[in-house]
Amino acid sequence: MELREIGEDNFLDAFNLKLAPGQERFVSHPVRSLAQAYVYRDQCRPFGIYVKDRMVGYVMVIYDYDAQEYDIWHMMIDEKEQGKGYGSEAFDRVIEFIRTKPFGDSGRVALTCNRDNSAAMKLYESKGFSASGNEDSEEIEMVMTVDQA
Amino acid sequence: MELREIGEDNFLDAFNLKLAPGQERFVSHPVRSLAQAYVYRDQCRPFGIYVKDRMVGYVMVIYDYDAQEYDIWHMMIDEKEQGKGYGSEAFDRVIEFIRTKPFGDSGRVALTCNRDNSAAMKLYESKGFSASGNEDSEEIEMVMTVDQA
Repeated sequence: MELREIGEDNFLDAFNLKLAPGQERFVSHPVRSLAQAYVYRDQCRPFGIYVKDRMVGYVMVIYDYDAQEYDIWHMMIDEKEQGKGYGSEAFDRVIEFIRTKPFGDSGRVALTCNRDNSAAMKLYESKGFSASGNEDSEEIEMVMTVDQA
Repeated sequence: MELREIGEDNFLDAFNLKLAPGQERFVSHPVRSLAQAYVYRDQCRPFGIYVKDRMVGYVMVIYDYDAQEYDIWHMMIDEKEQGKGYGSEAFDRVIEFIRTKPFGDSGRVALTCNRDNSAAMKLYESKGFSASGNEDSEEIEMVMTVDQA
């Protein structure tokens, strides 16, 4: 399992990833995420999640200079690749990447999780995230602090 | 009518543009185009097409360093804004932008047009484009040469 940056050679694989039925309402598709990556191109890094040479998912890390925190956006595992533990393993790779502090120096990591997405919430909690108290009717913010690599 | 670069303040307006029925098969939606803009971010410029302060369409200019030419990608006018001459006017603004040679120095401009998209083809011909002879089963390449601004 490794993360590889999205670029000329692999973006079409990211375009072709499929959200599992029911997950469209929780997570943006990688195409939409990459469109946002264009806008925030100086502060983000979108990745394909690879098992051997196969892209099985997608995730983006973005640095919020105002909040001084790393945000994890739009993590998804292709519908055909779910239930194999890839989400958990990819999440560890994401945290390793953030620990290198590729943008700002903060160790704060945040993400939001749809309150109905219990599978994701359980995963984040198992990795050390907890609710920050910020939430709206749909999304709950979860945070943790990482040390420098 | 003016072109404004896509950025943090207006990308959601681009996301919300709608292709007219039947045009989905001719042109990528701006979301998909912006995802490609991320990949080619060092050689392209995506724009919203504005009338007064309203985004009525979208277009991307990309420089092909191999072919040494400016390519016009994914130009579209929102379904509600068609039939007002905006496509033609926007096209003139695009050519003006290319004449400033924002990337490479070439004056060659190219685009491809679906062979069934006769409205677009007529527009391009009226602006001085002609078929280059490169074509596949779906798309015809059209080219012209512009002088420096």
